[in-house]
Amino acid sequence: MGEIINRQWRLVSRPVGEIRETDFQWTSSPVPDLREGEILIRSLYLSLDPTNRMWAAVDTYLPAVPLGEVMRGSAIGVVEKSRNPAFPEGVHVSGLLGWQDYAISDGRGINILPELPGVPLTAHFGLFGHIGMTAYFGLLDIGRPVAGETLVVSAAAGAVGSLVGQIGRIMGCHVVGIAGSDEKCRWITEDLGFNAAINYKTEDLAAGLREKCPRGIDIDFENVGGHILEAILARINLRARIVVCGLISGYNATSPAPGPANFSNILVRRARVEGFIVLDYAPRAAEAMTDLAKWLREGRITYRIDEVNGLSKAPVAINRLFSGHNIGKLVVKVQED
Amino acid sequence: MGEIINRQWRLVSRPVGEIRETDFQWTSSPVPDLREGEILIRSLYLSLDPTNRMWAAVDTYLPAVPLGEVMRGSAIGVVEKSRNPAFPEGVHVSGLLGWQDYAISDGRGINILPELPGVPLTAHFGLFGHIGMTAYFGLLDIGRPVAGETLVVSAAAGAVGSLVGQIGRIMGCHVVGIAGSDEKCRWITEDLGFNAAINYKTEDLAAGLREKCPRGIDIDFENVGGHILEAILARINLRARIVVCGLISGYNATSPAPGPANFSNILVRRARVEGFIVLDYAPRAAEAMTDLAKWLREGRITYRIDEVNGLSKAPVAINRLFSGHNIGKLVVKVQED
Repeated sequence: MGEIINRQWRLVSRPVGEIRETDFQWTSSPVPDLREGEILIRSLYLSLDPTNRMWAAVDTYLPAVPLGEVMRGSAIGVVEKSRNPAFPEGVHVSGLLGWQDYAISDGRGINILPELPGVPLTAHFGLFGHIGMTAYFGLLDIGRPVAGETLVVSAAAGAVGSLVGQIGRIMGCHVVGIAGSDEKCRWITEDLGFNAAINYKTEDLAAGLREKCPRGIDIDFENVGGHILEAILARINLRARIVVCGLISGYNATSPAPGPANFSNILVRRARVEGFIVLDYAPRAAEAMTDLAKWLREGRITYRIDEVNGLSKAPVAINRLFSGHNIGKLVVKVQED
Repeated sequence: MGEIINRQWRLVSRPVGEIRETDFQWTSSPVPDLREGEILIRSLYLSLDPTNRMWAAVDTYLPAVPLGEVMRGSAIGVVEKSRNPAFPEGVHVSGLLGWQDYAISDGRGINILPELPGVPLTAHFGLFGHIGMTAYFGLLDIGRPVAGETLVVSAAAGAVGSLVGQIGRIMGCHVVGIAGSDEKCRWITEDLGFNAAINYKTEDLAAGLREKCPRGIDIDFENVGGHILEAILARINLRARIVVCGLISGYNATSPAPGPANFSNILVRRARVEGFIVLDYAPRAAEAMTDLAKWLREGRITYRIDEVNGLSKAPVAINRLFSGHNIGKLVVKVQED
């Protein structure tokens, strides 16, 4: 196996502000031989997620990636060689395979993907993976929507936000999405069934929320934070739930951003602000899969993949998440076409 | 009854920054005759609470007091005259009687106080009224303490904070109080049984929390907000609960204070931040009364009354809540000694 070459992006400096390609080093080296119990996984699709920015920069719910190491990343691959009977050659798997062509693993943390006829592999990120679980458990378990309530979703055309809004509609909520382009706003209202959308780059957000949430806001599925969260907090109803899924507006900040100036509305409105991390819901994954697969079959939810061609593009492509240039789930096809 | 004179503090301007005596007007006028169904209540003790500052300034969970009206305030009094059979003359009652000697009411919102032998009337504020209920339901229902967890209480020598810490000890928590003087710190540790105290005016708060909460912070009973909340958020454990009872540091602010700069820790630590207002728990008051009376009998909790002599002092005395000069429950004895 000495002839298999593994290309890798290694993290060499902690990003300050926007991620730069020079925060990484592009290396390649032969794949070593497998030991007993190990498998060799060839990566097919790498998931790019806002949380990657945190992994590169600081210790959070996972320790920061050590400098010099392969960048951490969630990926889908195929078992190319196996010395572990639990992982036959040819099966598709997912796990934290990293930003590289090949990963060697003893199988811990590696999940075998069910083969779903007619469903592309990337759906395991977009719908049947951490994205779908994040939307499903974040909205249902933390947000606890009730039919007739008003749900606001920020980053509404993102991978998570676009699913949250659709699940909110299934639950009978009045769903308003906040997104950063007219194209995104059209997509979420015309194709995904959101009741309304606000383009925060061209519209006055406070006025938009007043107009499109005439009965106030009961649930905020928060992906952004900063001024967007502040505008939402100003309009929350009694006993509102703020599901803190992400605070992407602050991830590239070089110094801590102030929290919302109307933090006291949490008290006045008896609101609940709750953070969650999808990893905590792994034991309950089957619940989400069952419902999401059913809704997909029934044509009640749809999703979109934003595919980048080639592992070499990863450090540049990840900034699409922060610049507002991506729609749907951002993935990298590891091998260039 | 024309000869009974009612002295009143009327709100005449919205406070900006610290409350000034000139925000009020001291008036007096004869008490009118009672109509059928009404009672005349002579006020004995007026409760001064941080939330009064909000009532004077802005619409919150209650509308702001209209300018020109008698200042809103919770008080205990005695029924002096009655044309309502539900309220016999001579019984003690509590309610929003206002900053005045006498209140006329049709009985709505007025509660008859049980006579508790050996317990002073003011205990109906400090322990058996809204203060005790705030501490009890805020800690137990929102904070959900588990034995062995670490509880931090800000404004720990205040009326609510001093009870919260004692209830936390009864629940088996490691309790650390934050207060603004050595006298307060001594009182809460030596007399009330807090495990530790931090004087935020003379000690480094971050270092104090590191030292006195060696296993991190599981519950924050937050009365203050601002920099104190920020220092606490920096040390919260996974699944911490932030009980937002008050944000007194911001009540006198002339412009909105920024929220905590480490707001993102709510996400990273999967924390729950929840506001509550004691009024919501009125239907469950008996639960609190039962436990608090039992703990008082058993000598497991104690409380302190900080009594101001005379209604005329109310507008000046209320600033003791914000300047850090009061210990325990601040009340005004309406009639001067």
